[in-house]
Amino acid sequence: MTTGAEAASRGVADYLAARRQDVDRALDRLLPPEDAWPSILHRAIRHSVFAGGKRLRPILCLAAAEVLGAPALDVLEPACGLEMIHTYSLIHDDLPALDNDDLRRGVPTCHVVFGEATAILAGDALLTHGLGTFAAYPKGDRHAAAKVRVLETVVDAIGTRGMIGGQMADIEAEQETAPTAALLTRIHENKTGRLMRASLYAGAILAGADGATLARIDLYGSRIGLAFQIKDDLLDVESDAATLGKASNKDAAAGKATFPVVWGVERSRALLAENVAEAVAAAEALPGGGGVLPALARFIGARKS
Amino acid sequence: MTTGAEAASRGVADYLAARRQDVDRALDRLLPPEDAWPSILHRAIRHSVFAGGKRLRPILCLAAAEVLGAPALDVLEPACGLEMIHTYSLIHDDLPALDNDDLRRGVPTCHVVFGEATAILAGDALLTHGLGTFAAYPKGDRHAAAKVRVLETVVDAIGTRGMIGGQMADIEAEQETAPTAALLTRIHENKTGRLMRASLYAGAILAGADGATLARIDLYGSRIGLAFQIKDDLLDVESDAATLGKASNKDAAAGKATFPVVWGVERSRALLAENVAEAVAAAEALPGGGGVLPALARFIGARKS
Repeated sequence: MTTGAEAASRGVADYLAARRQDVDRALDRLLPPEDAWPSILHRAIRHSVFAGGKRLRPILCLAAAEVLGAPALDVLEPACGLEMIHTYSLIHDDLPALDNDDLRRGVPTCHVVFGEATAILAGDALLTHGLGTFAAYPKGDRHAAAKVRVLETVVDAIGTRGMIGGQMADIEAEQETAPTAALLTRIHENKTGRLMRASLYAGAILAGADGATLARIDLYGSRIGLAFQIKDDLLDVESDAATLGKASNKDAAAGKATFPVVWGVERSRALLAENVAEAVAAAEALPGGGGVLPALARFIGARKS
Repeated sequence: MTTGAEAASRGVADYLAARRQDVDRALDRLLPPEDAWPSILHRAIRHSVFAGGKRLRPILCLAAAEVLGAPALDVLEPACGLEMIHTYSLIHDDLPALDNDDLRRGVPTCHVVFGEATAILAGDALLTHGLGTFAAYPKGDRHAAAKVRVLETVVDAIGTRGMIGGQMADIEAEQETAPTAALLTRIHENKTGRLMRASLYAGAILAGADGATLARIDLYGSRIGLAFQIKDDLLDVESDAATLGKASNKDAAAGKATFPVVWGVERSRALLAENVAEAVAAAEALPGGGGVLPALARFIGARKS
């Protein structure tokens, strides 16, 4: 006998798998082909983009658009732009000068395979083409004002007061002996949370959402962003490398500010549940009870990798 | 007695100095302040942006807009976005994994002062905020379609088939024993030329230029882009480090594909003169004889640093 929670979770898993296929196919279409000049760079880009990500950010964008009445496939290209930007941030984070990670999503990182110079340029290119995707799609001048808004939203989310700022704070925190809870939240809200929030917000803008709806989507986004990061830190403590696709317990060993390090495992689990519950509540206030969004929030809190 | 050429050259120098002040003031206004979080990153960004550049790309954008009837100051912010992007490319090019340059524009490079991690993030941030500037300015939905066009133009110019591709080819060429003339042209058209061309094109788009005018601006841009690079290579051979603000003859020593290495100094000088003449002719076909543009082309060919 399956419980309702199990069935819902299987439903989300199916939804994620189907959307992931849509996103992967579109990414393959949007990214420059490997045999085109400059070939090595295009190979490095594709190596990292197709290294097995969950495509969570583009799927959040598609889901938000869908819930608000736009056909998900109308926002498929901008959704892919979000994954390009996410992959750029991973490639640069993994560099020897930053986190110095050799393994990501279970495969060797970009600089390990292609060298540092190419990895730096591959990250630059994914950031460039990712932002370019928001300018190019959806096609047509009638979407111009919405596209500009999406661009401003994403740039704000990934700039020095967003994702890049979070990364910088993360580096600085490694030099502290005891990172505070406030610093930890600031790092993760910016490093992980902002791009997830922006992904949902972008989908909502492209679906023509009004101000009140955008505010609800943004509340949902901020809660699942934090939930995602707390779960990530918990998985790092709880999992082994085979399940996680990267070295486990590495964050704590590196003196990283993580939720379990600062709050302990039990308090981190409670915080996770709190954020998931708030996300679910925000989503349920949306049209149609938020469609797939409440189940997505629960899935993010319960995922195994 | 001053010759006409000397007077014209002094006129351009005055024009450049005045515009450079406009650009510097606007950059100071647009870039996040040093005392705002994340402070180290903002200091690194400002260190590189205010290290004494010529502001050639923003000035080309302003000049194109002006010649085509738009008040130059209406496009001041997007012009600054071009300088942010140019500075990002310099910071990343200078990294140890790429050109490994300690000195740029006469001052220590970003990674020398702030470390590699911060320099990588500072470059990322300048690319992000640079592209964001095209979305944010000029303000107002009535400019949305033009802003999207500017974004597409710049992204195309700096992506893997543009500036980043040129940088990648440059790295690959260092491993060749004898770089060919075709490879050399491809590297520099992309690495230097494309962003200059896009700067002029962006100014023209924002001034509402028609297709025929855009084509003329683009021809002008492609010729001064190449002229600029040939002159840069010649200066590297001819100048000493004090005048140039960076190590001289370094390109040849590093086995870089330069015009003097491939064509010899005399043929490079002839190519430079040819490109300047073609740029002047293209500019003179524009309204009002191209305003300051013909003199700017001559200045680029005759500059001392």
